[in-house]
Amino acid sequence: MKVAFLGLGVMGYPMAGHLAAGGHEVTVYNRTAAKAERWTGEHGGGRAETPAEAARGREIVFACVGDDPSVREVVAGEHGALHGMAEGAIVVDHTTASADIAREMAGALAARGVGFLDAPVSGGQAGAENGQLTVMVGGERDAFDRAAPVMDCYGKAVTLMGGVGSGQLCKMANQICIAGLVQGLAEGLNFAQRAGLDGDRTIDVISRGAAGSWQMENRGRTMCRDEYAFGFAVDWMRKDLRIAIAEARGNGALLPVAALVDQFYAEVQRLGGGRWDTSSLMHRLKRAP
Amino acid sequence: MKVAFLGLGVMGYPMAGHLAAGGHEVTVYNRTAAKAERWTGEHGGGRAETPAEAARGREIVFACVGDDPSVREVVAGEHGALHGMAEGAIVVDHTTASADIAREMAGALAARGVGFLDAPVSGGQAGAENGQLTVMVGGERDAFDRAAPVMDCYGKAVTLMGGVGSGQLCKMANQICIAGLVQGLAEGLNFAQRAGLDGDRTIDVISRGAAGSWQMENRGRTMCRDEYAFGFAVDWMRKDLRIAIAEARGNGALLPVAALVDQFYAEVQRLGGGRWDTSSLMHRLKRAP
Repeated sequence: MKVAFLGLGVMGYPMAGHLAAGGHEVTVYNRTAAKAERWTGEHGGGRAETPAEAARGREIVFACVGDDPSVREVVAGEHGALHGMAEGAIVVDHTTASADIAREMAGALAARGVGFLDAPVSGGQAGAENGQLTVMVGGERDAFDRAAPVMDCYGKAVTLMGGVGSGQLCKMANQICIAGLVQGLAEGLNFAQRAGLDGDRTIDVISRGAAGSWQMENRGRTMCRDEYAFGFAVDWMRKDLRIAIAEARGNGALLPVAALVDQFYAEVQRLGGGRWDTSSLMHRLKRAP
Repeated sequence: MKVAFLGLGVMGYPMAGHLAAGGHEVTVYNRTAAKAERWTGEHGGGRAETPAEAARGREIVFACVGDDPSVREVVAGEHGALHGMAEGAIVVDHTTASADIAREMAGALAARGVGFLDAPVSGGQAGAENGQLTVMVGGERDAFDRAAPVMDCYGKAVTLMGGVGSGQLCKMANQICIAGLVQGLAEGLNFAQRAGLDGDRTIDVISRGAAGSWQMENRGRTMCRDEYAFGFAVDWMRKDLRIAIAEARGNGALLPVAALVDQFYAEVQRLGGGRWDTSSLMHRLKRAP
């Protein structure tokens, strides 16, 4: 299939690579052109100077950029993808962004007969590189049925959650769960270490029971060693929690712990940990006298 | 081996049964004698009127009672086990209690040449019935090596965490992890439902990734249906968190979320949910207008 990929960051770069490896004809666009050049050098395909140019004549245009304003710019801005797209084409946005921007983009594209799916992912850089992402999709069933087989190139599970915006809402629920979970884990492991227990042995014992989690299994031991130079960055988590907390103002969901943990992440940022993994909530507790 | 078991509650009753099934000669004591009669009717063995009488001539005396005062009473009270025990015997306390009471009992027993292990368990009623408990043990290596093979009758993992009190400290770390984890899970799933997502589908999608946990897998779907009439009771969780928060006053561990969640559990109690499963933190969020 003829597709475009807009945004070759740590996620988009390998995702676009999986599309090329899957036999699709990929044209890429990236704000920093050098990265797009490197990509075409590795994977072939074409490179465009603007999103509109990349999108021209493409059946599906994928985007994976930073935030709401970037989505608006590459999809509907002056040189946005919609200016190059034909009726019946689809935009799939893999950015973690607000449900509002998803609805706004869906409306702008629908006016030209172009479909839209919001499709944030989880699984991190490793998942993008291994083609093992979880993709949470919102939008029309027809568009989903056409785009899902293409997303299978990098997705281990691609699920339609509901109408437009539902993919973003599911991703927000995911991040809210993680916020409380990681803080609880940090408090428990820090308590164990301050009480004189061996951190690794504690994890061995409690990780198989009712306190067990992916985070304990995959981050607990590094937390005990105060190591965070990897994984999903605090800066990104704060963006995601900002979006979730804003959405909750509208739907009435109470987020007392997610909002508190967002403030703890603000403290981690002030301590220089904006690029650290989200498990660095542990560092606040460890550095306390 | 000749052993005694003090306290035939929802945990102790099946645990003592596994000891009998494992070929040990078990004498039981329970405050309510009728339960002890029922137990001997099912499992054979002997029944005693006091802990001291049950403990007489036994190599290991197991206890599983409610709280610190009950431990003190059955071990060192007027009719406590220590009055019946010979030098070289061991008390194994499976109660979830404070590290202080463990140290106090260890001291009182050491004066008579009797060993002591604090050995709280996790795995709940189902784990006790299936003989699949996790046992976290504190105490001397010698006593552990002698008692561990007997505990294997109901333990799938029996681990020495360190000196006396370490079993209790490990259990506290476990409960602290769960407090933040369950509140985060409740906030995430309540958010998803208020945002119009299907709870079960949300769990299917996010449970395999970085938000995944035992609690999400085993409690998420019932939380979405507002069902809590099973599992580990809020009243017991509050007892455990009280002990953990008190211990943290001494060791310097900060517990901002565990302390907050303890207050949320207080609200669940006020709503009539003292016997509900700990996942009932969800109910507070669901009932908000």
